Parts: sequence; structure tokens; C-alpha cells
Amino acid sequence: MSSTKVFLDEKEMPKQWYNLMADLPKPPPPPLGPDGKPVTPEMLSAVFPMNLIEQEMATDRWIDIPEEVLQLLYRWRPTPLQRAVNLEKALGTPAKIYFKNESVSPAGSHKPNTAVAQAWYNKQAGVKKITTETGAGQWGSALAFACSLLGLEAKVYMVRISFDQKPFRKMMMQTWGATCVPSPSNETQAGRAVLEKYPDTPGSLGIAISEAVEEAVSDPTGKTKYSLGSVLNHVLLHQTIIGLETKKQLEKINEKKVDVVIGCAGGGSNFAGLAFPFVLDKINGAGVDIIPVEPASCPTMTRAPYHYDFGDNAGMTPLLAMHTLGHGFIPPPIHAGGLRYHGMAPLISHIINLGLVSPLALHQLECYKAAILFAKTEGIIPAPETSHAIAATIREAKKAKEEGKEKVILFNFSGHGLMDLVGYDKFLHGELSDYALKDEELKKYTREIEQFPTP
Amino acid sequence: MSSTKVFLDEKEMPKQWYNLMADLPKPPPPPLGPDGKPVTPEMLSAVFPMNLIEQEMATDRWIDIPEEVLQLLYRWRPTPLQRAVNLEKALGTPAKIYFKNESVSPAGSHKPNTAVAQAWYNKQAGVKKITTETGAGQWGSALAFACSLLGLEAKVYMVRISFDQKPFRKMMMQTWGATCVPSPSNETQAGRAVLEKYPDTPGSLGIAISEAVEEAVSDPTGKTKYSLGSVLNHVLLHQTIIGLETKKQLEKINEKKVDVVIGCAGGGSNFAGLAFPFVLDKINGAGVDIIPVEPASCPTMTRAPYHYDFGDNAGMTPLLAMHTLGHGFIPPPIHAGGLRYHGMAPLISHIINLGLVSPLALHQLECYKAAILFAKTEGIIPAPETSHAIAATIREAKKAKEEGKEKVILFNFSGHGLMDLVGYDKFLHGELSDYALKDEELKKYTREIEQFPTP
Repeated sequence: MSSTKVFLDEKEMPKQWYNLMADLPKPPPPPLGPDGKPVTPEMLSAVFPMNLIEQEMATDRWIDIPEEVLQLLYRWRPTPLQRAVNLEKALGTPAKIYFKNESVSPAGSHKPNTAVAQAWYNKQAGVKKITTETGAGQWGSALAFACSLLGLEAKVYMVRISFDQKPFRKMMMQTWGATCVPSPSNETQAGRAVLEKYPDTPGSLGIAISEAVEEAVSDPTGKTKYSLGSVLNHVLLHQTIIGLETKKQLEKINEKKVDVVIGCAGGGSNFAGLAFPFVLDKINGAGVDIIPVEPASCPTMTRAPYHYDFGDNAGMTPLLAMHTLGHGFIPPPIHAGGLRYHGMAPLISHIINLGLVSPLALHQLECYKAAILFAKTEGIIPAPETSHAIAATIREAKKAKEEGKEKVILFNFSGHGLMDLVGYDKFLHGELSDYALKDEELKKYTREIEQFPTP
Repeated sequence: MSSTKVFLDEKEMPKQWYNLMADLPKPPPPPLGPDGKPVTPEMLSAVFPMNLIEQEMATDRWIDIPEEVLQLLYRWRPTPLQRAVNLEKALGTPAKIYFKNESVSPAGSHKPNTAVAQAWYNKQAGVKKITTETGAGQWGSALAFACSLLGLEAKVYMVRISFDQKPFRKMMMQTWGATCVPSPSNETQAGRAVLEKYPDTPGSLGIAISEAVEEAVSDPTGKTKYSLGSVLNHVLLHQTIIGLETKKQLEKINEKKVDVVIGCAGGGSNFAGLAFPFVLDKINGAGVDIIPVEPASCPTMTRAPYHYDFGDNAGMTPLLAMHTLGHGFIPPPIHAGGLRYHGMAPLISHIINLGLVSPLALHQLECYKAAILFAKTEGIIPAPETSHAIAATIREAKKAKEEGKEKVILFNFSGHGLMDLVGYDKFLHGELSDYALKDEELKKYTREIEQFPTP
């Protein structure tokens, strides 16, 4: 290939999102309300604006991207599809490695794809303020960015350990005009309850979600809504622009068949964004391996039961059918902060069960090693989350070498690691180690979901 | 305009650099050796490889970019030209504001444009290790990135105050495999001499250059060379790809005339990169205002004499004819670290004197205010250096409003500020203030250059 990078013009950017719900051989189990019955749109309306609730429940295959959202996306999209020629050389693999570079967005990750869409729909619905949670800060900064562009107020509950360890993400949010507080905080009942019981807790995404939802539903004017950066159907939907652009770019360079599609998965949105258009190919009979990658310290997809569970810590969300470690899960403090959610997107959990995708769990030292090889060969420093996708890609490239096959491997370069260099520094100084969730921890956390129905 | 972003294909990327030396109405005064006579290529050969020395002295108008350098540049180039529609709206200006987005490179700034070229030429010449200095760390990380891609060793002397205040840049360099030490260090005579006299010095670019040059010339094998990230002709030459791409992009959207061209200037390379192709237009009679912007705390272009002076602190470089605050200048600790060099590129100094460009000095509070307006309207957080170009752009856009003119303003978005958020945090908390260099400081520092010839 003469070109290492494939661009699209703005006019070539997809104008619709792809909704996997339309093509599933079997629909996923619905979210359940406190009464054990499927939730109705009305039940969600205290939390989300109705236009997004409709999208959450939509089953149309293609959903138009509003013109104004396209204009917002044009600020950094279409993103380049790049070939990792030098990584291929370093590995001596016959495989071709492509990556979709989502790190070029102003917030440095794929997260703004849904942030600008959600902020726009909220604004259309008359919302003035959006609350949310964030782990490592990528989602919080993306929402702060989006709200800043649309003139909305943003309030971000940031998992305390990240708030303390990653002050730069907080500064990013503040620069965009958002308010960022450590979670658990004293500002909500949910936060106060946790602090009373565990004053020194590092926090968790589950707790932060509870706080953000509580603030939204407590606004008597109804002008405050909550926004989630992953997990839900409409979030995954907004991310499908990644995979749709990629397909156009592969077509442009006449690359007809992709053999392996890889993305890291915390809540699942960057993986889904790249993979869902390829999952459709698989449903239609294509031979493609699709691999979501998670950390061994938070093995939702590979070891957790498929069960109904709350999306948050305090039980304010509907019950979702998903692979879950239990909503009380407090993740060990590894550095891939964005991959520490206790659950997995219901849609991804469902297609795991259908055998359409094949999850993989990796240890962090292998991932950091892969990230540094990538940085040295391809020049871009990956986010610790993204390093999981890279490590899996390297495994596949080595396998292709052993098999002597010229495979085409595609992964989502979901974000850069410029705000996560402390992790690299620790790795380079030998201060990191591997950690796999223990069986007894898994048992402890999943005990409390036994009370909920089985999907 | 329907489009907010103009891309070029790789095949549309310029294949030659533009050399302003070919078109100057009058040549600039030559660099002088210790004997007071113009330096010969041989005299520079202990410091630089001969292929780059030839380029430094070249007077051809167009210089071919080697194919392998093009391949390296393709990793992130061509960069987008973007229109700041929302900034225009916020200012209520009839002006159109375009910016060339150099922040999309893996190191986050324009610096890799010359880093990959210099590393490649060094490798061609058999060099194994490159030494350099860095202020805020943008140049050091760019060279670390380039050396990593080409398999060369990199050693970076980082101005001590930045080394201490900006550990993330150091981590970036280390992730790419470079060695980074604080300057002044104990590793060189130049460093030890300064430490003995001023043990608590914050350091300066001039001192760091002395250390890096000393390490290069002290290698008896001749396999260690020095690299400079700005100031010199060949560095400015490599950056002209910025302006050449921009012209193609403006042509693509049928934007025929640019009225104002703006870039921030420390050593001058990002300004030169964007501006030199437009300086040629001006030489040929075009009516265009070309504005290099510097901080009032380090007013090289607007207040310093035009004089022969050393490029470094210890006097290891040839004497350069330039606007200079004196090679002993220790800049006040403002945050736009990359704009604190005591001198200004000889080529830029020369065209200031020819009246081809019109420098402007700005205070940092105005620049931070401008940067935050840009971040909130356009979504990208600028480097503190870049904020100077934005503040000047806003001034010009307001002037266009007052005059009721639909001007076209173009500036170089030289880098993002994701590694510089501490400055934003301080600004948002009211901890920064303005500082203009005092007359007596200027007098003190420039006293020692009186011994050198006048150009």
C-alpha cells in the first residue's frame, strides 16, 4: 500500500447511524422496572429526554443523524483509518494491521461522538443542565466539551481515585466550563450513604452514576437530565459512525475482507462503534472474528454471570440484562480506568451469548508492553484502555505469522494516552503488576444480584 | 461555507519545501565564526551532519522532500485547515477565521515536521545519537518521537523549571525511549559552570542548547550530532509544508485572498512555516498583513536590538544576526514556555527589518482569556504558546468588525494544551498575572552583546 492513512471528505461521512437491534436473530431481554415488568418510556423520562428514550428503544435499522449533529461531528470527523506498517514490520507478521484513529477528537477519544449527539438532543428537548459520571475522565471531558459547544451546563461526578490521581482531566473539564466533583460526594444521598459506610472508598463508576442520576431526577423543574457515556443502546448507536466510516475507507483502498475486528470494552461503546457494522456481516454469514477485550482485573465478559442487575450502585436505574460482576463491585486500582465498569452493555452481553463475538481478558503488563511497542513504531501513545485492543491485535498478528496467513486485522484506536502518562511512568519503572480478580471476590460481589430475575 | 474542515489527500501533499532565501530582496547577514568571518560548512560539521548544513545554506527556491520523509510525514499529514465558525459567531465579526490545525500530530504540535526530517537526514549521514534541548517539552517530545520511528538514540536537555513543572512531557519522551535530563545538569561543563554560579537557576533554553551542543561535539566518534527545533534556516524550511498545504486547501474552497496571517513566535518556526509562502506573495505585491506574536515578558521582536549574538548561553554556536535579548537572558517563569528563547530566527529578524512582517507582543492574561474562548467555541484546548496567535486573531477579528470588513484571517494552531493544563488551572483560579520585561532588565541582558559586531 502506498498510503498509510485513508481520509474521507466530510461529504463522504455517513449520514445515518446503524442500529444492530434491527438485525439480531433474537431480541435482547428488555430492561425491567422496580415492578419486575419491562420499563416504559415514561418511567425513564425523569432521567433522559424523550427523544433519546425513543432512540434507546428504536428498532429501525438506520437512524438519520440530524444535520446540526453532523456539523458538530465535522469538527474532527471523519477520522483517519491508518495502517500500522511499522508495527507489522516489528512483528514480522504477514498480517495487515489497520486502526481507526479516534484519538484525533478534541477530547482525545471516541467519546465525543455520542457526547455531541446527546447534548444536542437534550438541548432540543429544552434541557439546561446535564449530569454525568466519569471514571478516568475521558467521558466527563467529552461531555464537558459537547456542553460547552452547545451552551449547556455540565456537572460531572468523577470517581474519587481518578479525581485524585488524574487532576489534568478535571482541569480539562473546567477549562470547558464544566463543574467536576469527586464521587462519592456529599452532594447526594447516594454519595453520603457510601461515605458514611466507607469514608476512604476510592469510589466506582456505579456510585458516580447513582449520584449523577439522583441530581438529575431531583431537579423539580425537569430541566436537568442525566447522560451516560456507554452501556445504553443509543450510546452504542451514536458510536457506529466509527465502523461505518471504516467500511467506506476500506472500500476506498479496495480492502475487501476483514478477518479480525478488535476493540477494548469497559461499558462497550468504542468496541460496539467499530464492531456492530461488522457484526451485521457476521449475521449475514461473513467469516470474521470479532473480539472485545477487557482487563483480567475486571473480567465482566469472560467470567461474570449473565444476569439482571442495576446499572449503578444505589439501584436507581432499571434492571439491565448483562454480564455483571454485581453493582457493588469496587474495582482494583489498575490504570485502565475506563475499563472498570461492573457491567457490560446489554447489547454486547447479548451478542456474546449469541456467539457473534468472542471476548478476551488480558493482563495489564502485556497491554503496557504492547502500548509501548505501538508508541515506538507508530508514534502515537495509546490510552491504557486502548492498549488492551493493541495487545489483542499483536496476539492475532503473531498467530497470523505462525499460520503464515495474510490476515487483515482491524482495531479501534479509541484514544491517546497523553493524560495517562503516570501509568506509563510506573510501568517503565517496574512499579506495576498484574492482578486477576479472585474467585472469592467474584462470588462476594455477585451474591447480591441473586435476588434479581434471570434473563 | 458548508464545510468547517478542509482535508487534502496524501497525494495532494506538497512534495517540496519552500526556501524564502531564494526570494529575499536582500540576503540576511551571514552567521559569523569566532574569527568574525562568515562560518564555513566545515566549521559546523562537528555539530550538524553535512546534508543539513547544505540545506541550512541553500538558496534554491524549492527543495525536494525525500520520499522516506514524505512517508514519515504521512503519519499525520496533511493536517486539516479548519474554519472557526463558532468563534466568529461569538465575536460577531464579519471576518472569516481559518486555522491550520497542527495539533493533530502524535506529539501534539508542529514540531514533528522538522523532527522527522532532521532525524532522517542524520540517519542518512550515519549518526547514531541526537542531542537537543527543550523548553516546555514540545520539541523534546517531537524529537523523541522522530528518533523512535527511525531507531536513533535521543538525549534531551530540558529547561529545569519545565522539567519540574511538566513531568508529563518528560514521561512522553521516556515512553518513546529518549533520555531526558534537567538543564543545567552536571553532565556537561556548560551545565556545571552555571550550577556553580547559580545553583537554584530555573535554567533557560540558551543554557540547555550549550549542554546539548557540548555533548554532541565531545563525541570522539562523530556519531553524535545536535539538533535544534527552531531558529535555523533548515528548521524553518521544513515547517513551510504548513503554509504550502494551507494554500492548496484555501484554493480547494476557492478562498482567493488572505488578509491577515498570524503565528506565535518563540524561535519562530511555526510562524515561519505558515507565513513564509505568504511572505513570498507580499514580496510579489500582495496586500497581506503578516503578524508574528510574542509574549510581552520576552519581547525579542518588538523591543530587543538587532545584533549579532550567540544562539546559546555558553557561546558555543556561531554569532547570529538577530533580534536578541542577550544570550544570558533568563526568562521570567510565565507559562508559554516555548516562547521564551532569547533570540529570534535570523530569517524572521531579517524580514522584520525589511518591513515584510509586523510583530506584536501580548500579555498572558489576554492570551489565556482568548484560549478559553477558543476552547469553549471551537472545542480544542490550545497550547499556551498558540494562545498568543489566537489572542492576536481575536484582535484582528474585532478590528474587522469595527471596520465592517469581511476580512480573511488565518492563523497557525501550532499545538494543543493537553500537557499544559496546570497553566489553565492557575488562570481559572486567578493565580496568574501579567509581566512585561522591565527596561533595566533589557539593558542588563543586552549589555554583554555590545562586544559583538553590528550586522
